[in-house]
Amino acid sequence: MTELWLIGIGTGNPSHLTLEGMQALKDAACVLIPRKGKGKEDLAHLRHAILRHADVTAKIIEFDMPERDESLPYQIRVGLWHDEIARRWQAALKDAPHGPVAIMVWGDPGLYDSTLRIADRLEPKPSLRVVPGITALQALTSAHAIPFNTINGAVVVTTGRRLRDHGWPDGAETVVVMLDGACSFQSLTERDLHIWWGAFLGMPEQILDSGSLKAAAARIIAARAQARARHGWIMDTYMLRPMP
Amino acid sequence: MTELWLIGIGTGNPSHLTLEGMQALKDAACVLIPRKGKGKEDLAHLRHAILRHADVTAKIIEFDMPERDESLPYQIRVGLWHDEIARRWQAALKDAPHGPVAIMVWGDPGLYDSTLRIADRLEPKPSLRVVPGITALQALTSAHAIPFNTINGAVVVTTGRRLRDHGWPDGAETVVVMLDGACSFQSLTERDLHIWWGAFLGMPEQILDSGSLKAAAARIIAARAQARARHGWIMDTYMLRPMP
Ligand SMILES: C[S@@+](CC[C@H](N)C(=O)[O-])C[C@H]1O[C@@H](n2cnc3c(N)ncnc32)[C@H](O)[C@@H]1O
Ligand SMILES: C[S@@+](CC[C@H](N)C(=O)[O-])C[C@H]1O[C@@H](n2cnc3c(N)ncnc32)[C@H](O)[C@@H]1O
Repeated sequence: MTELWLIGIGTGNPSHLTLEGMQALKDAACVLIPRKGKGKEDLAHLRHAILRHADVTAKIIEFDMPERDESLPYQIRVGLWHDEIARRWQAALKDAPHGPVAIMVWGDPGLYDSTLRIADRLEPKPSLRVVPGITALQALTSAHAIPFNTINGAVVVTTGRRLRDHGWPDGAETVVVMLDGACSFQSLTERDLHIWWGAFLGMPEQILDSGSLKAAAARIIAARAQARARHGWIMDTYMLRPMP
Repeated sequence: MTELWLIGIGTGNPSHLTLEGMQALKDAACVLIPRKGKGKEDLAHLRHAILRHADVTAKIIEFDMPERDESLPYQIRVGLWHDEIARRWQAALKDAPHGPVAIMVWGDPGLYDSTLRIADRLEPKPSLRVVPGITALQALTSAHAIPFNTINGAVVVTTGRRLRDHGWPDGAETVVVMLDGACSFQSLTERDLHIWWGAFLGMPEQILDSGSLKAAAARIIAARAQARARHGWIMDTYMLRPMP
């Protein structure tokens, strides 16, 4: 593999794909796609839908995603997992046609995604190209038709785990939260916050809710649990801002 | 105007446009385009290039952007300016064909952009649709092929003015800065920071630099001044992160 292209595909809506992303998929010699196993078929399905939609004729090469060893401490577990994924990429590409290898990355390749860190482990190092994609944050603000920031204001982008561990970031005007499997906004209901929440953003299943966090928290927890039970998985993101 | 579509067009590369954005431009009854006056022709030019590229046949309606009254205090000046733009939209659309009105917004309509706030001033309120677009932040991280965040880390998105006024945000791991006409990173050179800088991101004129802030600051200031003199304008963005 001499050239590796990481192509952001947006967050569930096949038309989030950019013209640049579509052209890159057409120009690639092959596309490497993870088989994620049970419960994640919806996401694999979307990647194939995008390839059909874009009339991509490149060779499709699939590989099985390894399991994470949940018994190990977080940092070590993630490091070993990335090592193993890099090995599987190289094994899967052994007989690949010459030319650029494309990987379709959910959302934007820069945002809470490990593909760049996995690519860093490859030996010899391929030349890297990153094609930006629509993120879950843009899918959230566009679905609600709201600005990301207040006028000239700052925004903290963070994770559910950090919100639980560190609370409301000091002096923050706007906080957006990703990777939250635990409705961590619950720890903030004594504050006067507004929440804008979205699950399955950009997809036909999209669910939105917004309002005062005090009133909306219980409603969102219930809707999230219900949707998760129905689909078998869920992805959600939200924005918090002090009430004016 | 009963339907208003704010369409993110990305940050200078016509192929940042998403398939959704392209389709929306095709489906709109008319496209409202600001004439920004001297020095901004490059940007008007790009909008027209995108429309041609996407084979858009909607009626193009142009309006002159008002001047800001620089003698007024910031908040008042911006408020009055938005009022005046909303009036000009309505005047320009007086004889517009029926159907959705599209406005092409640089980058993503949610990020440091006033179009949503101007739309809020319209009477009667049209129904709003926001189509997400690639932001300058994604253009920056993809050009440098770097992640936006550290593993599970938070990111502060802020402006040059705030960085000057408030310094390095308490405990921040990554800071990205937009709307900085004054190279405000200069105030941080005593810290051990890494900077990734980009100007004209996504455009043929794109310039990148990165390295230790102590060493890179003077280089970037010089490159920025030179590029600005050559083009008559400049847009730049950067990311800062403590050195490992
Ligand atoms: C591993 S991160 C990947 C983010 C992705 N690279 C991006 O640019 O949005 C996954 C997290 O993104 C958010 N997310 C991704 N897609 C989403 C969607 N369609 N709806 C809601 N949240 C989404 C969720 O917070 C989820 O936990
Ligand atoms: C008024 S804001 C609009 C941002 C836009 N809505 C977005 O999503 O990127 C303009 C600022 O965005 C950044 N910017 C926009 N386009 C850029 C480009 N092509 N290269 C570098 N910076 C850019 C600069 O920091 C500039 O001061």
